[in-house]
Amino acid sequence: MQENNWDILITGGTLITMSAGMEIIEDSFVGIKDGLISAVGRNNDPGFPTFKAKESINASGCIVMPGMVNTHTHIPMVCFRGMADDLPLMEWLNKYIWPTEMRFINKKMVYDGAMLAMAEMILSGTTTFCDSYFFENTTAEAISVVGMRAVVSQGFADIFMSDKVKADKMMNVAERFVNRWQSYAPLITPAYFCHSPYTCSPDTLIRVKDATREKGILFLLHLLENKDETDTILNRYGKKPVQLLHDLGVLDEKTIAVHCNWLTKEEMTIFADLGVKVSHNPESSMKLASGVAPVPEMLIQGVIVGLGTDGCASNNDLDMIREMDTAAKIHKVTSMDPTVMNAQTVLKMATIEGAKVLGLDKLIGSIETDKKADIILVDMNQPHLTPLYNYYSQLVYASRGADVKTSIINGKIVMKDRQLLTIDHKTAMDNVRKIAADIINQKLITVSV
Amino acid sequence: MQENNWDILITGGTLITMSAGMEIIEDSFVGIKDGLISAVGRNNDPGFPTFKAKESINASGCIVMPGMVNTHTHIPMVCFRGMADDLPLMEWLNKYIWPTEMRFINKKMVYDGAMLAMAEMILSGTTTFCDSYFFENTTAEAISVVGMRAVVSQGFADIFMSDKVKADKMMNVAERFVNRWQSYAPLITPAYFCHSPYTCSPDTLIRVKDATREKGILFLLHLLENKDETDTILNRYGKKPVQLLHDLGVLDEKTIAVHCNWLTKEEMTIFADLGVKVSHNPESSMKLASGVAPVPEMLIQGVIVGLGTDGCASNNDLDMIREMDTAAKIHKVTSMDPTVMNAQTVLKMATIEGAKVLGLDKLIGSIETDKKADIILVDMNQPHLTPLYNYYSQLVYASRGADVKTSIINGKIVMKDRQLLTIDHKTAMDNVRKIAADIINQKLITVSV
Repeated sequence: MQENNWDILITGGTLITMSAGMEIIEDSFVGIKDGLISAVGRNNDPGFPTFKAKESINASGCIVMPGMVNTHTHIPMVCFRGMADDLPLMEWLNKYIWPTEMRFINKKMVYDGAMLAMAEMILSGTTTFCDSYFFENTTAEAISVVGMRAVVSQGFADIFMSDKVKADKMMNVAERFVNRWQSYAPLITPAYFCHSPYTCSPDTLIRVKDATREKGILFLLHLLENKDETDTILNRYGKKPVQLLHDLGVLDEKTIAVHCNWLTKEEMTIFADLGVKVSHNPESSMKLASGVAPVPEMLIQGVIVGLGTDGCASNNDLDMIREMDTAAKIHKVTSMDPTVMNAQTVLKMATIEGAKVLGLDKLIGSIETDKKADIILVDMNQPHLTPLYNYYSQLVYASRGADVKTSIINGKIVMKDRQLLTIDHKTAMDNVRKIAADIINQKLITVSV
Repeated sequence: MQENNWDILITGGTLITMSAGMEIIEDSFVGIKDGLISAVGRNNDPGFPTFKAKESINASGCIVMPGMVNTHTHIPMVCFRGMADDLPLMEWLNKYIWPTEMRFINKKMVYDGAMLAMAEMILSGTTTFCDSYFFENTTAEAISVVGMRAVVSQGFADIFMSDKVKADKMMNVAERFVNRWQSYAPLITPAYFCHSPYTCSPDTLIRVKDATREKGILFLLHLLENKDETDTILNRYGKKPVQLLHDLGVLDEKTIAVHCNWLTKEEMTIFADLGVKVSHNPESSMKLASGVAPVPEMLIQGVIVGLGTDGCASNNDLDMIREMDTAAKIHKVTSMDPTVMNAQTVLKMATIEGAKVLGLDKLIGSIETDKKADIILVDMNQPHLTPLYNYYSQLVYASRGADVKTSIINGKIVMKDRQLLTIDHKTAMDNVRKIAADIINQKLITVSV
């Protein structure tokens, strides 16, 4: 019989551990202390009643599961949610997204957008995300206020590194960003992000990757989002994108390739051998008609794949539960095989596999003792979640972001009974509405209704 | 200045009319009397303040739009939600769905399932649905209690019509069902449903279609859900399914073909010429890996297409908003064209086009004076729906079923501020949980977690 005082005790829920053994514990308890999961078990375990907690959460009727991990997004782009849709990719980028970004991206937009995005993410069950955008120092400030867990990756592209002076300046800014936030790990983990092989020269890719190696941080890039990227790179360098990156030496276990819609089987084996991780963003790639990543084949080849929403301008939400549902269904119909990407596989991609992609699987992604307490409660006591035969199916195919009731990150309750505790969401909404009003008033975009 | 007393007055919302002109009215009012929309306009219209209403609804921050029309479902199958997933179609049917249906379908299961399904549908913005299952007389009784609008179609298949005595009995039962409910139109509209060309003989198809002609009711059937249906019918009858049905004379403007995943361009022109309607159920067909219906081409050919969820065992929800999002995205990526199936087109399919499929477009599907008052309010004042550039985009790509705040059917409020007024959802959930417990206890299915 153990003596202990927990900070938080969650009782009565069905615990979906997402551990290696995929244990499910009905009528469970989870004890949290000092930000860690300190005990997990059944309510009738011997010794249970002697535990005391500062705060108790009744999880009756709920699934208790690891908070979800969104492996790729550009959170300040919530400011552009629905600004321009149903357009060809290059028209969307050239006429709407890039001109608006040029004019409206600044620290305030990034901060306000980040706050609103975090409200949305917490309200739909995400506890960890990987962001890639500009002014990541500002994003990290917003994250530290809210108390989410994040990999925050500062973006690079040749446009900002066109000569040595500019490039040196950019690297210095990035280095200061990493130095500032590295001590916040593992709540905030700084990283670098090269936009893509077609917007970053070999020199830029090598220089940025070398810098990440020196600092021991992650290196991210968009890769093979669109079909024509292969031809673009082939024409420019005489080799395909993955071969180019491999020859440049930037592919290793600390590299995350985002999208990979057009990855070949041979390229998958390179990724598997080198330990390159993949972030799969099905909804964004469907909406932009970019393609469907061959994820079932990647999994067979042994590539680690996590799920992501991408930014709000191409999704148009940050809801990981909806992303799971779509991920399962798109691969079934694409492969004409209803057995691929089953509910359990997809739920892993949204939790423990996503954690592996971000190099955080020792700390998060499953509910096990001594891991960080990143936990969500999903309220299953609702008409659209009745009856309940299979927890994984219900979570992936029938649940919605709005069913997430309570969220704990790093042992701290950030949402309780749908009430956000670390974000003033009304202010966050008002601030972003003002930014949107400015964008509309500047007539940079034509808002058609 | 008109003198009037409305039953319900909805003010302050943004009205998405879905009328032929697709008018959008900000700061709108909608007056409802005797089940009808009696006035629509802007709040500053002259004469507005003199109107009085028994009940006023403040729609500030909301979109006011037509209730959604689900053109195909099997509502009692909510009892099987998540019972068996990620399986090949024939294994799913033969090992799980059909044995369970054989054993557990009875009037009580149909009634309890219908009540739960209607709770879910109202809570996610559906006001009209088209159901096809067994014991539709019982389903209609449940519908009349709740006050939803529905086309209720009694199912036929050769298994129930194997000899003349059985067939005559089945036709008599069906005829009594139609006679009983025909006077409830247009709230309840009886119809007949032949399961498919591969489970119904030419004789059955002709006999049932003739009966619908006599009664002036709709005739529905599953068609070309799976790729191999073409070969099955070709081998059996020496012609493809659409040609078979055409030659049998069962295709006309009162026929609804459900799925049509493998419809050819030539067959589309037949449908367009004859006025045959199509119900498109993308999520179900993705999950079962049945195929992707060529809807963009159908629309070009002039076929009327509505949206549907199919039953809960293959979706696994009845959420039309999620269905819209998936419908838009799957066609973009399948055709590799991000401009097809834009948000407005998809929202039409979920409202006015769905009403056309069901032959109810003179009455519902848009918000216009003298139409039936089937209206929903969607609460846009939420983080995941901020900012707001384009109403159609926001509804299709970012909203969720849980954002529907209030629902009015036939001029009666059936949900207000997320509270169901005509269904006791707790009892409905308990009843279906008992059915599920029986199914699990009978070990007809192995519930794997």
